[in-house]
Amino acid sequence: MKTKEKILAKALELFNQHGSEKVSTRHVADALGISVGNLYYHYKDKQALIEQLYEQLVTTLNGEFDTFEAADTGLTSLMHSVRFTFDTLHKYRFLMLDFVQIMRGSSGIKAHYQQLVQLRKEQFRFAVKLLIGQKMLSESIQEVPFDYLQMQFTIMGDFWISEAEILYQGAAADKIKYFTEAMLYWFYPYLTTAGKKVFHEVLPTLFEK
Amino acid sequence: MKTKEKILAKALELFNQHGSEKVSTRHVADALGISVGNLYYHYKDKQALIEQLYEQLVTTLNGEFDTFEAADTGLTSLMHSVRFTFDTLHKYRFLMLDFVQIMRGSSGIKAHYQQLVQLRKEQFRFAVKLLIGQKMLSESIQEVPFDYLQMQFTIMGDFWISEAEILYQGAAADKIKYFTEAMLYWFYPYLTTAGKKVFHEVLPTLFEK
Repeated sequence: MKTKEKILAKALELFNQHGSEKVSTRHVADALGISVGNLYYHYKDKQALIEQLYEQLVTTLNGEFDTFEAADTGLTSLMHSVRFTFDTLHKYRFLMLDFVQIMRGSSGIKAHYQQLVQLRKEQFRFAVKLLIGQKMLSESIQEVPFDYLQMQFTIMGDFWISEAEILYQGAAADKIKYFTEAMLYWFYPYLTTAGKKVFHEVLPTLFEK
Repeated sequence: MKTKEKILAKALELFNQHGSEKVSTRHVADALGISVGNLYYHYKDKQALIEQLYEQLVTTLNGEFDTFEAADTGLTSLMHSVRFTFDTLHKYRFLMLDFVQIMRGSSGIKAHYQQLVQLRKEQFRFAVKLLIGQKMLSESIQEVPFDYLQMQFTIMGDFWISEAEILYQGAAADKIKYFTEAMLYWFYPYLTTAGKKVFHEVLPTLFEK
């Protein structure tokens, strides 16, 4: 790993451990045994580290969601995508735990996130339509205003880590499984009989090694 | 209003406006034109103010949820309760916006909140059972593990204000209406035909003056 990457990986580790508020660029440099000057050569300040990690997270998730627009997608791959997303969000959990504070502190991240939600909304709309066409989702899902469906989904995706921080006691792997399943069950009442069958087949396989 | 109450009301106002992190006891005292010593006579520190406001919020909401166990309750009063709850949470919104940070900073509030979630879980279980008995909710809701239903509901209740802070542009009254409706529609797929009829009758009346 190059120095630049090492700095980013260490910053992520320390931010996740202590919260981004409590970690300074000096802490990061010290933990790597490099000078603060060396760190500043690569990242001009802590905000630059946070923004770079935010971008990494978004790029990783975009890679996943873009495959979603492929023709051979369906309920099974949607479920795997949610699992991958929750796993990835957990790797960058300081961003989620300090969500409001980080958005307040960076108008760049905030503006980017607002755009991202619009993109996700279109991807979500596409997925719902596709799953209705495949008779996995019931048409009755269209009785709920689409903006509200999307907002329910967004709030759960963005804040399950914060809720887990307060309420969940247990190992990280169990926590991710618990909240991924809680999220996937949000789809459940909208599934057709065929959809429920697929759901029950796929769910136990999601966390197999 | 007595000085003690005035201090609390002003603290709430300033916390909501600027976030509790950025407001000191001196700011509160200055805004009221009293000495910091006078403030300390009533509240030993900022933490005491935050804890008192948390208690006020919980007491207000408990008053609402306790009526829920009365015999004449049903879907209509549940919907009104959600509306009242969202309105109340918004009045104390700094607690919700800095939820994780406040819980981390106070083991007392955190422990209390964990207990409260257990209580709400039993109230929620009671409400679901009652609404099934009244043929407003479909028995199919029991196909979803109860813990997951409760967790979905809890995340949305606790974090809609944080999501709104980033994503919603518009007046406070419109925001509260939007997110209350988004929350209520979470019940929608579980409603029976009779339940949907009540839902559509009650929803437009919730925000009438």
